[in-house]
Amino acid sequence: MQFSHCWLDYRRIDQTPYRKIYIGCSDTGTVIDSAVGELEYGLNKMFGTTPVRLENLDQELAGESDALAISLLVDPEHEGLNAEGYELSTDQNKVLITAKSDKGLLYGAFAFLRNLQLGKPVPEIAELVNPDTPLRMLNHWDNIDGSIERGYSGRSFFFADRQVLVNERTRFYARMVASVGINAVVINNVNVDEAATYLITDRYFNELRQIAEIFGSYGITLYLSLNFAAPIALGDLDTADPFDSRVKQWWMDKAKEVFTEIPNFGGFLVKADSEGRPGPYTYNRTHADGANMLAEAVEPFGGKIIWRCFVYNCQQDWRDRETDRARAAYDNFMPIDGQFKDNVILQIKNGPMDFQVREPVNPLFGGLKATNMMLEVQIAQEYTGQQRHVCYLIPWFKEILAFRTYCGKPADTVRDIVTGKTYGQTNCGIAAVTNTGNDYNWTGHDLAAANLYGFGRMCFDQHLSAEEIAAEWITLTFGHDEKVLSNLSKVLMMSWPTYEKYTAPLGIGWMVNPGHHYGPNVDGYEYDRWGTYHRADWKGLGVDRSSKGTGYATQYNEPLSSMYESIETCPEELLLFFHYVPYTHQLSTGKTVIQHIYDTHFEGVEEVAEMFDLIKEIQDRIDPEVYKRIAARMEHQLEHAKEWRDVINSYFYRKSGIEDAKGRKIY
Amino acid sequence: MQFSHCWLDYRRIDQTPYRKIYIGCSDTGTVIDSAVGELEYGLNKMFGTTPVRLENLDQELAGESDALAISLLVDPEHEGLNAEGYELSTDQNKVLITAKSDKGLLYGAFAFLRNLQLGKPVPEIAELVNPDTPLRMLNHWDNIDGSIERGYSGRSFFFADRQVLVNERTRFYARMVASVGINAVVINNVNVDEAATYLITDRYFNELRQIAEIFGSYGITLYLSLNFAAPIALGDLDTADPFDSRVKQWWMDKAKEVFTEIPNFGGFLVKADSEGRPGPYTYNRTHADGANMLAEAVEPFGGKIIWRCFVYNCQQDWRDRETDRARAAYDNFMPIDGQFKDNVILQIKNGPMDFQVREPVNPLFGGLKATNMMLEVQIAQEYTGQQRHVCYLIPWFKEILAFRTYCGKPADTVRDIVTGKTYGQTNCGIAAVTNTGNDYNWTGHDLAAANLYGFGRMCFDQHLSAEEIAAEWITLTFGHDEKVLSNLSKVLMMSWPTYEKYTAPLGIGWMVNPGHHYGPNVDGYEYDRWGTYHRADWKGLGVDRSSKGTGYATQYNEPLSSMYESIETCPEELLLFFHYVPYTHQLSTGKTVIQHIYDTHFEGVEEVAEMFDLIKEIQDRIDPEVYKRIAARMEHQLEHAKEWRDVINSYFYRKSGIEDAKGRKIY
Repeated sequence: MQFSHCWLDYRRIDQTPYRKIYIGCSDTGTVIDSAVGELEYGLNKMFGTTPVRLENLDQELAGESDALAISLLVDPEHEGLNAEGYELSTDQNKVLITAKSDKGLLYGAFAFLRNLQLGKPVPEIAELVNPDTPLRMLNHWDNIDGSIERGYSGRSFFFADRQVLVNERTRFYARMVASVGINAVVINNVNVDEAATYLITDRYFNELRQIAEIFGSYGITLYLSLNFAAPIALGDLDTADPFDSRVKQWWMDKAKEVFTEIPNFGGFLVKADSEGRPGPYTYNRTHADGANMLAEAVEPFGGKIIWRCFVYNCQQDWRDRETDRARAAYDNFMPIDGQFKDNVILQIKNGPMDFQVREPVNPLFGGLKATNMMLEVQIAQEYTGQQRHVCYLIPWFKEILAFRTYCGKPADTVRDIVTGKTYGQTNCGIAAVTNTGNDYNWTGHDLAAANLYGFGRMCFDQHLSAEEIAAEWITLTFGHDEKVLSNLSKVLMMSWPTYEKYTAPLGIGWMVNPGHHYGPNVDGYEYDRWGTYHRADWKGLGVDRSSKGTGYATQYNEPLSSMYESIETCPEELLLFFHYVPYTHQLSTGKTVIQHIYDTHFEGVEEVAEMFDLIKEIQDRIDPEVYKRIAARMEHQLEHAKEWRDVINSYFYRKSGIEDAKGRKIY
Repeated sequence: MQFSHCWLDYRRIDQTPYRKIYIGCSDTGTVIDSAVGELEYGLNKMFGTTPVRLENLDQELAGESDALAISLLVDPEHEGLNAEGYELSTDQNKVLITAKSDKGLLYGAFAFLRNLQLGKPVPEIAELVNPDTPLRMLNHWDNIDGSIERGYSGRSFFFADRQVLVNERTRFYARMVASVGINAVVINNVNVDEAATYLITDRYFNELRQIAEIFGSYGITLYLSLNFAAPIALGDLDTADPFDSRVKQWWMDKAKEVFTEIPNFGGFLVKADSEGRPGPYTYNRTHADGANMLAEAVEPFGGKIIWRCFVYNCQQDWRDRETDRARAAYDNFMPIDGQFKDNVILQIKNGPMDFQVREPVNPLFGGLKATNMMLEVQIAQEYTGQQRHVCYLIPWFKEILAFRTYCGKPADTVRDIVTGKTYGQTNCGIAAVTNTGNDYNWTGHDLAAANLYGFGRMCFDQHLSAEEIAAEWITLTFGHDEKVLSNLSKVLMMSWPTYEKYTAPLGIGWMVNPGHHYGPNVDGYEYDRWGTYHRADWKGLGVDRSSKGTGYATQYNEPLSSMYESIETCPEELLLFFHYVPYTHQLSTGKTVIQHIYDTHFEGVEEVAEMFDLIKEIQDRIDPEVYKRIAARMEHQLEHAKEWRDVINSYFYRKSGIEDAKGRKIY
């Protein structure tokens, strides 16, 4: 086996095995075949019994107490379900999986297997889940040469040497992400270079069609990132101006070609006018002009355009204290709210900066009122330890989703917005920049798979807590060992707050080495052009984003705006994001800011040691190879956390001249 | 023409032209052919007359007042000349170039042409010059793929795509560097990667032979950098242990092969046990063991081994204040002084760190007493503006050469040591990491050619001042225009002190962006592993290298050691190299250190503006293309100097909290 089966490595379960297993289905099709196939595979692995497929649904199990009968029923009239929801119900050894669609059945099949693997006896399995997030998407930043931008798990399994790969891994990937409810995948990097521009030409249609078919059989729609300047890059035109009729026609023709050649194709993800990428601004057009032009082209085929809002000035002068990168998404997109076609979705990063360990929620959520929106998070741990540190991000994402935007509607959380509750939209959802690569274990760090699993589950079922998701993943991955469950749960649940402690304090973010973004470098971006500053001097640190500063805080609805405006009411975990404060500013704990910095950094390292101890305690309870991989990373994490601690503490000690109250070693 | 002819672009001169020119020579050979060829070419260009070559020397010019007769005489008995020296003497229109060797004649021929081009009438030309530096060497850090490590002038003209290039440029390069007295060239990077290891195999002998022949005809000996682990890398052995008899035999065989295949081959340059390169330490052998093993192999062929002393721990922990990179060369090589074979030369960087704009002189000069030594300087402007800033380095090198080491001998300057005066050595000299590439103008910045010219001249003739060399180069390059001479002289002469002013103050060095080393980044290396720290905090900055600190100052002979030991006597330009001092420490000017930092950084920018003005004044007096290139770079330099000023000043203001006494803008 060239790759681990992660949470789909169904173990024998501790139930009296069924000697016979029957599976019957009311319908046919590739997705239903997948559902049945998954049941056959999983039940066989768990019970050691090869299921028998029945033509019809009638389950007469008279006297067959050692038989299990599973019926899959497509019931378009089911009132309690939405299009992709499912219901599992059982009557002793009869199981009914109901859904309105084949995709619902697939999710139901995976759910049934999950329940079993988690240890639930068949007669107790009963659940009805309606996924509330329409688009549950993964974005791969895979380059066509096989490298992965911000990839920490090996090379791409979609591309190598400018070839598109289709193999066993493609299929397993589809199974794996479908099992947690992912229904859309962008396979190539949002930065579309020259070579990747050709993905929308016949050079690659053959392989893309194969991928789309595999994806389709698991309910996943294939998307591609595109190059806004493709009409030029592919050599056909000398402009990419969205108002140019030749450009419009070019995209019409291109869309027709792509959607015809690739069945089950969903549309395009676009990074335009961002970090050097071309876009409508080049032609003095708005982002709405650009997006709508593409949207018109894909509309006849039911396609969508997902347009990223990560637009900011990356040529800023560090001496300029007016320009604020945090303001950029809002400043760029608020004026054109309501101008986008209905098949355009704006994909908005969770925060106004770039996937830091802590940021406020992007004010476009709560700002935009007449535009389809998707939340973009990053499970590729670019700024959160690059899959060499454990950092379970689901608690952080749950916080973001639960954030109230005060947009004026009763349902006003980020989750309400991106699930369509707030404005009744259907083109919306959540996307994650994903963390996979061709490493044996898919995610580099074995524990990073919890983020992949967790992202899907979190999108699919809003009622799950981060703890519940972690517990599911641990049990599915490592089996039923109470100690393993308890220790790994602790490790996962403490990992994100711990990472925050030993890295960038109180919401200030950054302080990483430029370029690769790994490891501490307080001034790494301070005198640079990227708009990410801490403004630390001998008196204090932080960025004044109140109305007296850059005014970023005013982009929020009330009462958020006032809350962030004032040092007194600003949540402390974001204090330095919104305010410049003296090192001697007293926090609610009674500690000064500088002492808080020292303390959290010492604590962070102690907590990593604690996490490592928790891991060591289960050494004999998990696969030795897995343990070896995790332990090696934990060892590095501990050393690297010390590096973070010492650099950050020394930097601020050397700047402030304020001694640690506890007299610990600061360099 | 694919490349500029730099200072060999002989212009018509303002003398009554000779209608006939005769050249006669006492001897024959390829070097003499070059000498005569250069005279023919240069005189023709300067006078418009094609010289006639005579078989014998007798110059009967009765009545031919419009004729010029040049005799080249090899006179092995000439008492006033050393092996490569020459004498020019004239009797009206008869010129005699005398030397003990063909190389001396070549240098004499170039000198005669230079005198003419500089405007001296023939009858006034009279000079006798003995080059006092045995090896006058250029080190190219050209990689076999065509890239150049620390190259700022395009790609390599020796290599492209793993091929060795031999073409018109090769020949012109040889002429150009021979014209200033260079007699040895290493064409490949000291970091010898896998592919370049094959340079000493038959894969490349054919082309290397051609280069060696071209070089040889201009008195230049070809050298190669080698990979100490070549016996392993080339797949022949599993060790490179210098004590292993198979390894010794391998190198014996290899040396025989290389010296046989490449006539006029000089030997090898070796970077061992440095920055990840393999070396004798791998096998618990000393550098003497490693160097001597190679030296024995090349000895039968008169070959030399040039062994770099750039050996230090590049995996240092920034928290460790004991380990001092500055100590490394001395600590590594002093214990083995006297253990090297006579055909080994240690190549020692000018300072203990790495080509900073200001460093103390390497204490190995004055330390080593029984080892052949070469000084290594860098005209590739890695840390001095990367040929985007003007930085004429000859004044700095002259300072270094004039530095008294107090080694206990009457002739104790660095120059005395590397020219063999101090210890009577003949295997010694000066090497420069060179600044050329395949740019049209060879050096990226047109004014950077002054460093290439100047380096050769400085090595050849110790009596020339930096000003004189600059004046020569300006006139040869731009012609006889007083304003051009005066303005460019000013620009060149102020450029190094100006660069020092707006970059790293008082000898502290570094403060550059890691990796590419361009542009300011005060903490760029502060928390890193490279051993280059400034240790700035809220009170002050600098590294204590006195006996109370790392002890580096004690590596010098007295009275230097005591001079550096004390803050009072330490030269101020090196104050922060040797001492940590408070920002409020008062300098001899009466200014505090912090005020000095502010003032020099403002002054530096003003001086760049002044330099730019001086350039602008001569716009109409020089080639428009050349002006365009220089002006574009000056414009960048001015902006970039401001960036340096603002980053350095802001950094120290933000750390010290001390206001600029003059209230200027600090960010």
